Amino acid sequence: MKSDAINMTTLNGKQGMVCILGTGDFGRSLGLRLLQAGYEVVYGSRNPQNSPLLPNGARVMSQEEASQRARVIFVAIHRDNYELLSCLSPVLEGKVLVDVSNNLKKHQYAESNAEYLSMLVPKAHVVKAFNTVSAWALQSGGLDANRQVLICGNNADAKQAVVDISHSLGLTAVDRGSLRVASELEDLPLQLFPLWRLPLRISAGLLGVFFLYVLIRDVVYARVVDKKDISFRIMISLANKVFPMVALVMLALCYLPGIIAAFLQLYNGTKYRRFPDWLDRWMLCRKQLGLLALAFAFLHVLYTLVIPIRYYVFYKRANLYISLVKENKTYEFSDTMAWRSDAYLAMGMLGFALFVLLGITSLPSVSNTLNWREFRFIQSKLGYLTLLLCTAHGFLYGWDKFLHASAYKWWMPSSYMLALVVPCFVLIFKTVLIMPCIDRTITRIRQGWERPGKAGRIKDARSRRRNGV
Amino acid sequence: MKSDAINMTTLNGKQGMVCILGTGDFGRSLGLRLLQAGYEVVYGSRNPQNSPLLPNGARVMSQEEASQRARVIFVAIHRDNYELLSCLSPVLEGKVLVDVSNNLKKHQYAESNAEYLSMLVPKAHVVKAFNTVSAWALQSGGLDANRQVLICGNNADAKQAVVDISHSLGLTAVDRGSLRVASELEDLPLQLFPLWRLPLRISAGLLGVFFLYVLIRDVVYARVVDKKDISFRIMISLANKVFPMVALVMLALCYLPGIIAAFLQLYNGTKYRRFPDWLDRWMLCRKQLGLLALAFAFLHVLYTLVIPIRYYVFYKRANLYISLVKENKTYEFSDTMAWRSDAYLAMGMLGFALFVLLGITSLPSVSNTLNWREFRFIQSKLGYLTLLLCTAHGFLYGWDKFLHASAYKWWMPSSYMLALVVPCFVLIFKTVLIMPCIDRTITRIRQGWERPGKAGRIKDARSRRRNGV
Amino acid sequence: MKSDAINMTTLNGKQGMVCILGTGDFGRSLGLRLLQAGYEVVYGSRNPQNSPLLPNGARVMSQEEASQRARVIFVAIHRDNYELLSCLSPVLEGKVLVDVSNNLKKHQYAESNAEYLSMLVPKAHVVKAFNTVSAWALQSGGLDANRQVLICGNNADAKQAVVDISHSLGLTAVDRGSLRVASELEDLPLQLFPLWRLPLRISAGLLGVFFLYVLIRDVVYARVVDKKDISFRIMISLANKVFPMVALVMLALCYLPGIIAAFLQLYNGTKYRRFPDWLDRWMLCRKQLGLLALAFAFLHVLYTLVIPIRYYVFYKRANLYISLVKENKTYEFSDTMAWRSDAYLAMGMLGFALFVLLGITSLPSVSNTLNWREFRFIQSKLGYLTLLLCTAHGFLYGWDKFLHASAYKWWMPSSYMLALVVPCFVLIFKTVLIMPCIDRTITRIRQGWERPGKAGRIKDARSRRRNGV
Repeated sequence: MKSDAINMTTLNGKQGMVCILGTGDFGRSLGLRLLQAGYEVVYGSRNPQNSPLLPNGARVMSQEEASQRARVIFVAIHRDNYELLSCLSPVLEGKVLVDVSNNLKKHQYAESNAEYLSMLVPKAHVVKAFNTVSAWALQSGGLDANRQVLICGNNADAKQAVVDISHSLGLTAVDRGSLRVASELEDLPLQLFPLWRLPLRISAGLLGVFFLYVLIRDVVYARVVDKKDISFRIMISLANKVFPMVALVMLALCYLPGIIAAFLQLYNGTKYRRFPDWLDRWMLCRKQLGLLALAFAFLHVLYTLVIPIRYYVFYKRANLYISLVKENKTYEFSDTMAWRSDAYLAMGMLGFALFVLLGITSLPSVSNTLNWREFRFIQSKLGYLTLLLCTAHGFLYGWDKFLHASAYKWWMPSSYMLALVVPCFVLIFKTVLIMPCIDRTITRIRQGWERPGKAGRIKDARSRRRNGV
Repeated sequence: MKSDAINMTTLNGKQGMVCILGTGDFGRSLGLRLLQAGYEVVYGSRNPQNSPLLPNGARVMSQEEASQRARVIFVAIHRDNYELLSCLSPVLEGKVLVDVSNNLKKHQYAESNAEYLSMLVPKAHVVKAFNTVSAWALQSGGLDANRQVLICGNNADAKQAVVDISHSLGLTAVDRGSLRVASELEDLPLQLFPLWRLPLRISAGLLGVFFLYVLIRDVVYARVVDKKDISFRIMISLANKVFPMVALVMLALCYLPGIIAAFLQLYNGTKYRRFPDWLDRWMLCRKQLGLLALAFAFLHVLYTLVIPIRYYVFYKRANLYISLVKENKTYEFSDTMAWRSDAYLAMGMLGFALFVLLGITSLPSVSNTLNWREFRFIQSKLGYLTLLLCTAHGFLYGWDKFLHASAYKWWMPSSYMLALVVPCFVLIFKTVLIMPCIDRTITRIRQGWERPGKAGRIKDARSRRRNGV
Repeated sequence: MKSDAINMTTLNGKQGMVCILGTGDFGRSLGLRLLQAGYEVVYGSRNPQNSPLLPNGARVMSQEEASQRARVIFVAIHRDNYELLSCLSPVLEGKVLVDVSNNLKKHQYAESNAEYLSMLVPKAHVVKAFNTVSAWALQSGGLDANRQVLICGNNADAKQAVVDISHSLGLTAVDRGSLRVASELEDLPLQLFPLWRLPLRISAGLLGVFFLYVLIRDVVYARVVDKKDISFRIMISLANKVFPMVALVMLALCYLPGIIAAFLQLYNGTKYRRFPDWLDRWMLCRKQLGLLALAFAFLHVLYTLVIPIRYYVFYKRANLYISLVKENKTYEFSDTMAWRSDAYLAMGMLGFALFVLLGITSLPSVSNTLNWREFRFIQSKLGYLTLLLCTAHGFLYGWDKFLHASAYKWWMPSSYMLALVVPCFVLIFKTVLIMPCIDRTITRIRQGWERPGKAGRIKDARSRRRNGV
C-alpha cells in the first residue's frame, strides 16, 4: 500500500491521480476539494465534450479512459446508471470503487447501492464512503459541517486508500465494517431526528391532554356555571398553565427510567438481565426529553414575564385599585403572602437557571470537554436538584389551595396538582434508592455482583446500556 | 518515507529528532509540545549561549549544527532574518523547511513568506504550516482552540512529514495544495470576521435609518407640533421600536436571496447559469444575517420585559389610576383588546423561542450532529415559520392603527409598517414558489433539467453555490 | 511496522486480530467497537465457559491462548489481578499491552497501573491508552463524547499500533510521551472540574460576604432601629442585591490579573521574569471566572424581571396609589428621573447582551472557529466594553445616593458602592495602560525587548503563559 502511495506520487509533488465518474453537484464539489488537496483529478463522463462547470485543473475524458488512469475511482452517478459500469468490468478489475450514492427514501431497493455495484463489478473492491458528507460541507471547507467520513467495505487495503484520501481532505474516517453495513450508511442521510420522535410524541400527547384539561376546567366551566366568556385566556393564561406542567412532567420522565432500572436490578439481583425493550428505548432518549422540557420551561418563563404588560392584567389591577379607593380600604400586608410569593418565584428562577446549565452542558462541544465523572455530576446530581427546585416551585405555587373546595371544580383538581404527581413519585423513590443500605446493594450489583440463587443470566448485548443508568 | 520514519525512531523509543530555528514564543511552545509527544528537539540559535526559557530536555546549538541533526526543520524566525538562512543552503539541501511565520498586516510583502524562503533556499522542500495555530493553542493542549493545521507545499513527501508530526501532536492536518496557496494561509490569521462585515454593515445601516425615522416621527414631531420634550424616550422607547424593526427586516433578508435565486433559475430555465456577484455574496452570509437578527430580537425581548419597571411607565399608570378615580369612572373591559394583546404577545414569544432554536442549531457543534436533511428542515421550514410568526406579531401589534390618521404624522407612516414591507414581500413570493406547479419546475431545474431553447451555459465554478439555495 | 499491518490483514479483508483480556463493561464495549471496525476480536477469560454478554462475532478462550493470537492485547482487568499476568510472561514477550485501567481515587497506589504492569511483564511493551474514553462513548459511536485517546508509552512502534487502532475507531490519538506520564493520565478521569475550583471558591466567598453585609445593613438594621421585620425580603430583594454585586466584581476579577501582569512587566522591564504563582493560577481560570459572573448576571436579570409580579411590589404600589388619591395629589413627572431610570436599565441590558455574546464565544465549538485575532478582539475589546457598561449601570443605579446620609446606615455605605470598587480600579488602570506612551513600552516588552540594566532573566517555562496576557 505504501508503495502504491509512492507510485501515485508524481514528480511534481502531487498526491496522485483520482478518478471521478459523474459530473453532478457532488462530483464537482469533490473534485474541487481533491484538487485543492493536491490530487490530480480526472472526470469520466459519458459525454466528455459537454460537461459544464467542472473545476479548473481537472481533465475530462470518457469513462473508460478515466478509469484506467487512477487506482481510486469515485462513482458519483445515479444507481440507475450503474449497469453501464458492468461493460467497464475489465478496466475496473482490482480498482477501488468508492460508492458515494444516496437514495431518495429508505428501503427503496432490495440491496444497498454499494452491494449492487459490487455484484455488477465483482472484481473491483467496492467501498461505501462519503455519502454522509454533503456537497456543501465539502465546499465550505468542512468547518461547519460534519467532518466524519463513514466507511465500509470488504477489502482492508481499499478502505485504507479511502481513509488516506479522507485524511488529506481534513476529514476523519471511521471504519464501520464490511459492505453489509452499506445499507445502514445509506439510510443515515435520510433520517429525520430519529431520537427526537418518541420525546416529541410524548410532549405532544402531554400538551394535548393538559390543554384539554385546563380548557374544560377553566373556560368551559366558566361558560357553563358562571355564564362568562373567558376564552381570551386561552392565548396566554391557559398556555402558561400547560407549559410548566409539560416541562415538569417531562423533566421527571428523564429520571423515571433510571429509577425503574435500578429497582429492576434490585429485584433481579443482577445486572446481567435484559431490560424490557420499552425501557431501553426510553433510556436512550432521556437527553431529548430533557431538552424538550427545557424548551417548555423557557416558554413558561417568557409567558410569565410578560404578565405585567398584558392588557387583561392592566385592566384587572386598575379596577382593583379603583374599587379599593371607593370602598375606602387599604390593602393589608400579609407577611405569609410575601414569603410565599417570593419563595415560589425564587425556587422557579433558581430551578430554571440550573436547567439552562444542564442544557448548556448537553451541547456536544461542552460535554466533550467533560470527563465521565464531571458529566455524571452535572446530569445526575444537578439534574435531581433541578427537579427538586421545580417541584418545590410547584408546591409553593399551590400552597394551601388543595384545602379549598374551589380547587375542585367538577371534581377536577387544580391543574398544578396533576403536574406534581410524577415528580413526587420520582423524588420519593430516588430518596429510597439513596438510602445507604439500598445504595450499597445497587452499587455492588452494578459492579458485577449477583445475588446468590438468581440464576439465568441472559446473554444479551443490549444490557450493556445499563452502564448508563 | 516510511523508512525515514523508522530511521528517525531511535532505540529508546523516541519519535525522532526535530529542529527548531528560533527561540521566540512560538518556537518555545512548539518545542515543548514536541517534547511531550516524544520527539527529540534541538534548537538552532544565533546565540546558543544566551537562549532563555527553553523547555527542559531540549538542546541548543548553532543554527548550522542544529539543522544537520534533523530532517524536519521548523523556521520560527522573523522574515527579516530569512536571508541569514541562505548561507546555510548546503546544509539545508533536501531538508523539510516548515515556515510557520505570520505577518502583521495583509499584503505586507510582494510574495508570501514561504515562497520567499523557497527562493532563498531553493534546494530545500519548503512547507507552509502551523501559522494558523497559536502558541497558546499549542500549550493549552489544543482543547479549546482550533486543532486544524493547514498545510501547503510543492513536495508530497515533505508535506507528509509535517502531517505525521501534526497527528502526533493530536492535531488534524489539512492539505491545501501547492506553495502558491501560502499567501492565502498567511492572510488567515489576520482576518477579522470577514463573513460578518456585510451583515454588520447592513444592520448598522438599518439601525441608523430606522432610528432617524422614529426620532423625527416621535421626538422631533412632539417638539415641533406638541411643544413637548419627550427626548428621554430615546433610551428605551425608541430603541425598542428600532430593535424589532431591524430584527424583522434582517430575518427576512436571510430568506430573500434564496427567493431571488429561485426566480432567477425559473427565469433562466436552468441552474447552470451564474448568479450575479452580489447575490452570491449575499447568500454566503445568510447565517450571519440571521444571528445578528437574533441579537436584535434578544435586545427587543429584554427592552420589552423591563417596561413595567420603568419610572415613566410607573408614572403614567399612577396618573391614569388617579384620574380614573377622580372622574369616577371604571376601566371598561374590551374582549377584543384582550384577544389582540394576548395574541400579539403570544406570536412574539413563540417566534422568539423558535428563533432561539434556530440560533442554537447554527452552533457548529450542534449543526455537526445534524445530517443534511435535518439541517434543511430546521433552517428552512422552521426558519419560515419563525418569519411568519414574527410578521404576524408585527401585524397584531399594529392592528387597525393603519386606518387612523394619527398613524401618519407628517405623512410618515408608523414605524411598524415600514418593518413589515420586506417580510411580507418574502412571504408572498415564498407562497408563490411552493405552489405545486412552480415547485415542480424548480425541483426539476435543481436536479439538472434545462428548459429547451435555453442555450448558453456558462462554465463557472461559482454556480456550485446554488446547491445551497 | 507497516509489514506488521500487512501481516495482520487477513485474506477476508479484516483489519487484523486484537485480543482483549477481561470481559467487563469496558472490555465488551471495546470489543463491539473493534468488531464494527472490521477487527477480529478474541477475549481472554479466566473462565471462558462462563462469559456472558460478549458481542456477537467475538471468540472467547483462555487468557494464554488469546494472548498468543494477537500482537496488540488490551488489558481490561482490575489492577488487583495484574499479578496473574506475570505467569503469562513468556507469551507476552514483545507484545503490545494496552493498559486501559482507572483507579477509584487519586494516589491510590504508589506507581501508576501501567508502570506496575510494565514491572510485572518487563518484556512486553506497555502502552497506557483509552482510560479517558468511557464505555458509553465507545458505544454511542463517539458522537457525543470526547474523541481524544491520550496515549503514553516507552516504545514508539507499540504506540503507533495503538494510534492506528484509535484511528480505525474514528478517534483521534494524542501521544503524551513516555510511560512516566501514565499516572497523570490515570488521574484525568478522576478530576472534578479542577479549573472551576478557585472561581467557585471566590464566588462562594463573595456571595457569603456580600450577603452578610446586606443582611446586616437592611434586615438587622430595620429590626434594631425601625423595629420592623422585613426578613421576607431575603428571598428576592436581598438576593437581587447580592447577585449583581458578585457578577460585577467577578467580571472585574477576570481583567485584573492581566492588568497586574502588565504592570509587573513594566516594572521588571522584561517579559522574561516569572510571575508569582498566585498570578499564574489566577490567569489560568479567567474564563471560568467570567462564566460564573455571567451566571450571576443571568440570575440578576431573572430576579429583576419578576419584580412587577411580586406580591410585595403589588402591595406597595396599590397603597401608593391609594394614598395619592386620598391626599388628592398627582404624581409629578421628573424628566431627570425618567432619563436616569431609562439610562440605568439600558446600560444594564446592553451590558448583559454583550456578556451573553462573550459567553457564547467561549463555547469550545465557537471559539474553535475564531482565529487568534478574532478571539482577542471579542474577549478583550468587547470584554472591557461589557465591564464599562456594567459599571456605568451601577453608577446610574446609585446616582446621587452617595450624597445622602441615608446611604450610610451604621456607617456602612450602600452595597452598590462596594461592588463598584474593583471595577473602577480595573477601568482606571486599563486607561493608564492604553495611553500611547505606556502602550508602546508594553508592546515592545511583549515582543521581547528588555530595559537595559535589568539583568537576571530567570529560565522558567512557566513564563510562557505570559503570551496569553
